Amino acid sequence: MSSSFGQNLRFSIFGESHSAAIGVNIEGLPAGCKVDLEELQAFLERRAPGRDETSTSRKEPDQPEFLSGLKNGFTTGSPIAAIIRNTNTRSQDYGNLAILPRPGHADYPAEVKFGGFQDRAGGGHFSGRLTAPLCIVGGIAIQLLKRLGITISAKANVDKETILKAKAEGDSVGGLIECEVVGCPAGLGNPMFLGMENRIAQVVFGIPAVKGLEFGAGFKVASMKGSENNDPYRMVDGKVKPVTNNAGGILGGITTGAPIVFRVAIKPTPSIFKDQASVDLTKMEDATLSIKGRHDPCIALRAVPVVEAAAAVAILDAYLERRKEQAI
Amino acid sequence: MSSSFGQNLRFSIFGESHSAAIGVNIEGLPAGCKVDLEELQAFLERRAPGRDETSTSRKEPDQPEFLSGLKNGFTTGSPIAAIIRNTNTRSQDYGNLAILPRPGHADYPAEVKFGGFQDRAGGGHFSGRLTAPLCIVGGIAIQLLKRLGITISAKANVDKETILKAKAEGDSVGGLIECEVVGCPAGLGNPMFLGMENRIAQVVFGIPAVKGLEFGAGFKVASMKGSENNDPYRMVDGKVKPVTNNAGGILGGITTGAPIVFRVAIKPTPSIFKDQASVDLTKMEDATLSIKGRHDPCIALRAVPVVEAAAAVAILDAYLERRKEQAI
Amino acid sequence: MSSSFGQNLRFSIFGESHSAAIGVNIEGLPAGCKVDLEELQAFLERRAPGRDETSTSRKEPDQPEFLSGLKNGFTTGSPIAAIIRNTNTRSQDYGNLAILPRPGHADYPAEVKFGGFQDRAGGGHFSGRLTAPLCIVGGIAIQLLKRLGITISAKANVDKETILKAKAEGDSVGGLIECEVVGCPAGLGNPMFLGMENRIAQVVFGIPAVKGLEFGAGFKVASMKGSENNDPYRMVDGKVKPVTNNAGGILGGITTGAPIVFRVAIKPTPSIFKDQASVDLTKMEDATLSIKGRHDPCIALRAVPVVEAAAAVAILDAYLERRKEQAI
Amino acid sequence: MSSSFGQNLRFSIFGESHSAAIGVNIEGLPAGCKVDLEELQAFLERRAPGRDETSTSRKEPDQPEFLSGLKNGFTTGSPIAAIIRNTNTRSQDYGNLAILPRPGHADYPAEVKFGGFQDRAGGGHFSGRLTAPLCIVGGIAIQLLKRLGITISAKANVDKETILKAKAEGDSVGGLIECEVVGCPAGLGNPMFLGMENRIAQVVFGIPAVKGLEFGAGFKVASMKGSENNDPYRMVDGKVKPVTNNAGGILGGITTGAPIVFRVAIKPTPSIFKDQASVDLTKMEDATLSIKGRHDPCIALRAVPVVEAAAAVAILDAYLERRKEQAI
Repeated sequence: MSSSFGQNLRFSIFGESHSAAIGVNIEGLPAGCKVDLEELQAFLERRAPGRDETSTSRKEPDQPEFLSGLKNGFTTGSPIAAIIRNTNTRSQDYGNLAILPRPGHADYPAEVKFGGFQDRAGGGHFSGRLTAPLCIVGGIAIQLLKRLGITISAKANVDKETILKAKAEGDSVGGLIECEVVGCPAGLGNPMFLGMENRIAQVVFGIPAVKGLEFGAGFKVASMKGSENNDPYRMVDGKVKPVTNNAGGILGGITTGAPIVFRVAIKPTPSIFKDQASVDLTKMEDATLSIKGRHDPCIALRAVPVVEAAAAVAILDAYLERRKEQAI
Repeated sequence: MSSSFGQNLRFSIFGESHSAAIGVNIEGLPAGCKVDLEELQAFLERRAPGRDETSTSRKEPDQPEFLSGLKNGFTTGSPIAAIIRNTNTRSQDYGNLAILPRPGHADYPAEVKFGGFQDRAGGGHFSGRLTAPLCIVGGIAIQLLKRLGITISAKANVDKETILKAKAEGDSVGGLIECEVVGCPAGLGNPMFLGMENRIAQVVFGIPAVKGLEFGAGFKVASMKGSENNDPYRMVDGKVKPVTNNAGGILGGITTGAPIVFRVAIKPTPSIFKDQASVDLTKMEDATLSIKGRHDPCIALRAVPVVEAAAAVAILDAYLERRKEQAI
Repeated sequence: MSSSFGQNLRFSIFGESHSAAIGVNIEGLPAGCKVDLEELQAFLERRAPGRDETSTSRKEPDQPEFLSGLKNGFTTGSPIAAIIRNTNTRSQDYGNLAILPRPGHADYPAEVKFGGFQDRAGGGHFSGRLTAPLCIVGGIAIQLLKRLGITISAKANVDKETILKAKAEGDSVGGLIECEVVGCPAGLGNPMFLGMENRIAQVVFGIPAVKGLEFGAGFKVASMKGSENNDPYRMVDGKVKPVTNNAGGILGGITTGAPIVFRVAIKPTPSIFKDQASVDLTKMEDATLSIKGRHDPCIALRAVPVVEAAAAVAILDAYLERRKEQAI
Repeated sequence: MSSSFGQNLRFSIFGESHSAAIGVNIEGLPAGCKVDLEELQAFLERRAPGRDETSTSRKEPDQPEFLSGLKNGFTTGSPIAAIIRNTNTRSQDYGNLAILPRPGHADYPAEVKFGGFQDRAGGGHFSGRLTAPLCIVGGIAIQLLKRLGITISAKANVDKETILKAKAEGDSVGGLIECEVVGCPAGLGNPMFLGMENRIAQVVFGIPAVKGLEFGAGFKVASMKGSENNDPYRMVDGKVKPVTNNAGGILGGITTGAPIVFRVAIKPTPSIFKDQASVDLTKMEDATLSIKGRHDPCIALRAVPVVEAAAAVAILDAYLERRKEQAI
């Protein structure tokens, strides 16, 4: 199911940008895990909209209500459902999107796929707003991984000045996010289609606007020699260590114990305020689109905690898998 | 399960480089689909080893035996199992890999994960040889997609001279593969975690040696403006068309009708014939590794049909999904 | 994941008897399906508690709030989340269950499994109250199936008098529910583990208190001869029909076109008001349990629409599967 | 996928009665598990055909060849593929089944579903022969469970005399199989749709000819009172024990520590040698069917180890799940 992820930690994200609420249902978390809601809120704040001038002016409290699965600060072992009410919606801004699909946005393929029944307002289920529930489950995962000695940190390469300049022009900019995961033991992940790269890829490409993903030396490997790219092993403090990390901490889909390093290419926000060439789907003729609504001039900044969340759920999923692997 | 892929077309790959056989079990293909075994064999030949001097000298016929699910050239609707016998194995070449893990290869994390019980010979289940069964299911998918007007073609950017030069030095080289899928109707794929990018990513990162994946403008989007990256729509012959294709044919996880375009970074073969720093896992001390065995000096060439196979299974999976989407 | 069901229609149920809310998240319903909320409410009323004296005195409005996935009475194609707030909870009644597990209830194995972190109040996630969300998705499925000409009706074999007599004695009674599905075309379901019987079984055994399930002639087949049990075929109005229906409408996991008939054995409510032998889990010694709380003297009556819901989701799941089966 | 089962131990069965081979691919077994092939063969012999006069005269060696995933008697951690060649096929016996579907068999619904492309010979993928691969994975699971102190034994209630009498009449008989699992710790299984009952049900209804399944007191619970059906707890040797076992060892989908007890109703073999009313699907008119081929006069005897295999895979699947449940 397309809005769900995970084999062991499994979650399903629901909601539309302007529906009553957005949220997530989480299965597979063991009972008895402490969840610090203040820490989680602090994490969600990093993604929340309307916090400064580089972000959309739609301000949302983004405070989840936990409906089930948590009691006295601990997981109960049954599904954890959390919702965030949509409070600050202005669906009238989206009046003309019904017929003039925004270039670079999901409007047109969604129209074909859902035959006009999709909720168009605010991008509906395709909205970047749906990364808030991903951050709920990701924020919880980050807390659990920290207890296991695994920490995740990402950063974007864009500066505020560039963003504000683009914003002033009614335009938008893309960005590159690099994420590093330190403390992963060797042995997480699997060969083939549930490798650590595949798991991370499956979540990361679920973040709207991601168009590229690379691990370790990434695209550079294409022009490297084996003797350059291979990470030699040495004994360090009695432990096997790759002395370089072109592999980005993953070989054969399995962690090596070195930091997991990956980079994500985020495209510029498709919703810009310059006139754009589009088509009128009701008249089936060329048209010029002028966008209203409230949009981030650069998604890459707010996407930083989302990428961390993505890494966290992928790794926690693999961590739980690993628990099953002792011989009988 | 890590050696399986797909929601609607579902397949499981089994085998190790030196086990009795490798193979694939395929579920979800409708009954009554014609499968042309000669055409399939021609496709498998493009991947098969030992065909020229840029490839490993291990020559294998790579001719699948279909055990079930095919009758008189048509699918029966029950699972299709196909195997390829491993005939040309020289396990003795791998004697010292047990203790000296090859840099850049899965040897070390596999040792940690499977505790020494994994089949080490020839890379075991991590071997590039396991892409042969992927090409069986992919080759069938390609035939079906062609009937639907969808064609897939990939090419690598490496030339034979560069490869032979590296080979002569006992080294190896990486490469870049670009794949284009023409004829996909708009509306395939889904939002979030089963988007067309996610599906392709989940298979592509299952091909050994892949370290990066990008769609359309790919990593360039990070330094583009929205006004540059957005693909404007125009009416062309009465149909909606994006006039550029920075999106690589996918928006919001769903195909736009433009060609799907993606690029894959393939690392240089980790098995090189120069001495490398490794460790002796039995003595837990530094050691120097000298590799024997037969290895491709560049995987990227033989990986071209594998990338096509990966695209095909991902798209066919989404195509079958699409069939369920009519309103009731 | 244990609170989820389905391959094509996929739903996840969340909530605990006394948590803020219970609910369900539904994926896989095509966009553009009309959902009549009044008709759904009428269906939910058949299961809702506190409606007459054969039921628990806990009266709940059981009116779902749809958070997403529905717009203007039609499905949007994105996940449908619906919740029911728990309003009438009296957790204090469950004070002593923490240490004295109720015979016949999930208390003891839940204690072992979740280590005391489970929400014990009202039976937590094991409560029959969790069948309300099942009825939300089931009620929607029933509406869709009706449009396809498929109707589902179940009935219980218990009379009100027997129930009230048991209630007066502080006891409870079980019951048998028979369910019939008319109008299913031949060809739904699959061989082996996703047969129509398997699908129905997987949902039906998810209804608390179910201890047996049989199809068609059911357990009687064990003492029948082939010549008695086989349903002969005849041409009726130009169509192939089995003239008897010992198969209960299913052969080889696939529907025959005859009505699907199955029976479900419902155990008597484990929560009775007579003193019972239990153990004190804190002191690890024998103890006598005296139950408070509000409980149905017979679950079988309120379970009738739940069984219909179970059949509906299983059949709709198979119906969507069937759409993929045309040859390419 | 309909020929696959399991969340943690996952297997896919392939093959048709007269295809080149039948087999199974198994994923999720930890590396390093010892598998005794002689013990496995002895288990398979209990199911194998043609061993005495109560069985079909089709004699098959039923000796699996392991293609992958096993090395030196231990699991390697990668998928285990095993096949059994079909040697003794007489497809010509099935000539007239193409047009005259056998009452009580899957012929007719399979014809509708697969449009005539299914392999009709010997029942194709619906044949009881496909329980041999189930016994391969089940036999391995039984060995592993035994090491964990969990033993499984089933028995059928039919005597040889009854069977031979039916055989002499060209008829067949059904039977009842009871299965008991001793040594399961409390805490295996889950609430709702992956309860231990649901898991067992999903496999058991995958065995051809099963029409009913009940746990513990089973269908009797429908006419019991709560005070009769509830199993009281007592402390026995310092441990909590239910003193009766009407629950069949399962409450709320989770094991209680008492033996798991279930009964399965097996219908009489549909292939009988008396003339039967059928239809001619090519002429679409009534017809009389006279069956050739080799068939068991009673499936229930040979199904005994199959039921044990079904229980074993369901329990091992839940056992592996349980390993993930420790709090982080």
